[in-house]
Amino acid sequence: MNATSDMRICVLGLGSMGLGMATSLLRRGFKVTGFDPNAAALARFVEAGGAGAASPAEAAQGADVLICVVVNAAQTEAALFGPDGAAAGMARGGIVVSSATMSPEMARDLAARCAAMGLGYLDAPISGGAVRAAAGELTIMASGAPEVFKRLEPVLSAIAAKVYELGDEAGTGAAFKIVNQLLAGVHIAAACEAITFAKAMNLDIAKVYEVITASAGNSWMFENRVPHILEGDYAPRSAVDIFTKDLGIVSDIGRTLKFPTPVAATALQMFVMTAAAGMGRDDDASVARMIAGLTGLELPGMEG
Amino acid sequence: MNATSDMRICVLGLGSMGLGMATSLLRRGFKVTGFDPNAAALARFVEAGGAGAASPAEAAQGADVLICVVVNAAQTEAALFGPDGAAAGMARGGIVVSSATMSPEMARDLAARCAAMGLGYLDAPISGGAVRAAAGELTIMASGAPEVFKRLEPVLSAIAAKVYELGDEAGTGAAFKIVNQLLAGVHIAAACEAITFAKAMNLDIAKVYEVITASAGNSWMFENRVPHILEGDYAPRSAVDIFTKDLGIVSDIGRTLKFPTPVAATALQMFVMTAAAGMGRDDDASVARMIAGLTGLELPGMEG
Repeated sequence: MNATSDMRICVLGLGSMGLGMATSLLRRGFKVTGFDPNAAALARFVEAGGAGAASPAEAAQGADVLICVVVNAAQTEAALFGPDGAAAGMARGGIVVSSATMSPEMARDLAARCAAMGLGYLDAPISGGAVRAAAGELTIMASGAPEVFKRLEPVLSAIAAKVYELGDEAGTGAAFKIVNQLLAGVHIAAACEAITFAKAMNLDIAKVYEVITASAGNSWMFENRVPHILEGDYAPRSAVDIFTKDLGIVSDIGRTLKFPTPVAATALQMFVMTAAAGMGRDDDASVARMIAGLTGLELPGMEG
Repeated sequence: MNATSDMRICVLGLGSMGLGMATSLLRRGFKVTGFDPNAAALARFVEAGGAGAASPAEAAQGADVLICVVVNAAQTEAALFGPDGAAAGMARGGIVVSSATMSPEMARDLAARCAAMGLGYLDAPISGGAVRAAAGELTIMASGAPEVFKRLEPVLSAIAAKVYELGDEAGTGAAFKIVNQLLAGVHIAAACEAITFAKAMNLDIAKVYEVITASAGNSWMFENRVPHILEGDYAPRSAVDIFTKDLGIVSDIGRTLKFPTPVAATALQMFVMTAAAGMGRDDDASVARMIAGLTGLELPGMEG
């Protein structure tokens, strides 16, 4: 690999998370080439000073480090190994950093395919949201070989405030992330159920927010998402479809391991119901709107 | 009512919460008479400087304020209005402070029966646990007439760090508390499901605790209860049976209002399963032991 100042980085996926990571790297002086099938996303990145490419393969040509921040395992696989895939053209000994939430099994499989091509792999799911991505302050739940962590140090320090080194092998980072998503998804569904239940009992839901956030019923997600409901603002900071996907992975792993996850399974159905009602791309707090629609409640923004 | 220094207070129910409240009042110089059908609980209170009584009626004779901290609505009703019940012998114009978690409907009913006897009523569920009860630092989610709040001010300030004044009528405090319990119960069940799921994926669960408590999957309950699992310590700080009761109230209210609560209903079943497995009186984190027993996982303290 070249010296840090010459390190060539490729970012695949320039949604809010990928764009934030890519621009954080630009600020530290890295050369970053990006690709996104969405032309508007790619244009935002070029405007921010990045180099745009027409395909994953073009973006990754000669790259020392490839950061893949697409939506799921299937997109990751296609971006790396599909037609016009990125992996084949990377620099000798390059490293793939994979940040999409996926099953541990899939992460292990991708790592093995990279290894067969002489590429390193960091299983590196991310947490923190768009604002922290833009600030270079993500949390990364990572696993991989110690030398991979070492070589990536300047890259990871540019994009993350906290890097958990969770083990030597791909799959461990993915597993930690999926545990987090199990809890996050259940807590969003519970927050939406609780706040609409409060409304059904004719409580002042702004007051409920005040009391609960100071009580033992609080969660990170309750505190973060209920304001969207109070403001009637369902512009997607994180979409319903993300949790139908991530709780779906929980469900898949559970069936494979013969491990029941009834609470997560119920929360999954709440997100599926919300997507079925046409709100899959809206903010995940839309579970509250789904419940309100079903029960005839009037939440803020639903008047009239 | 007498001057504060002469105010006679009765506390019914001297479990960890009631005892903490009663001793907090003793420290402020109130005269406190207590009753608990459990002789050991009563003895602890007498040892702490309180006056013990042989029945609710005896404890409440001439009391200006009665604080009822029993387990549920049925016990509250019996303590106040049953044979040897407390309400009839209270001082003229006395106030009943009812802290058991119950349905809003039940709270309204008890308030009406008190009013018919010329007694004031504060719907005053509590939150905070035994340690904060002992320190006089509970949170109270209260509703009642403004003059009731005013007359109780010295009493409430002795037992609580924070008193939410949530409305003029009984039932509102109960409703806020039950929203809190919905969330708390779901979060405990989710924490137990997530930590055993992590164990099933062979993760280091102490590391999972560290990562999740710093991530968006965190909840007050995850942070508070998972250490019980990590230490294999299921001595009841709060018992499984409390949540079979409280989530049962959620379910009852939901059926009455025709308001579905699928996430809470699933969590309820997790507590019922844990109680069915013989752990109803153990710590509510025992949901994790129930899952581990079912799936053949070995959690801390279950070795061999």
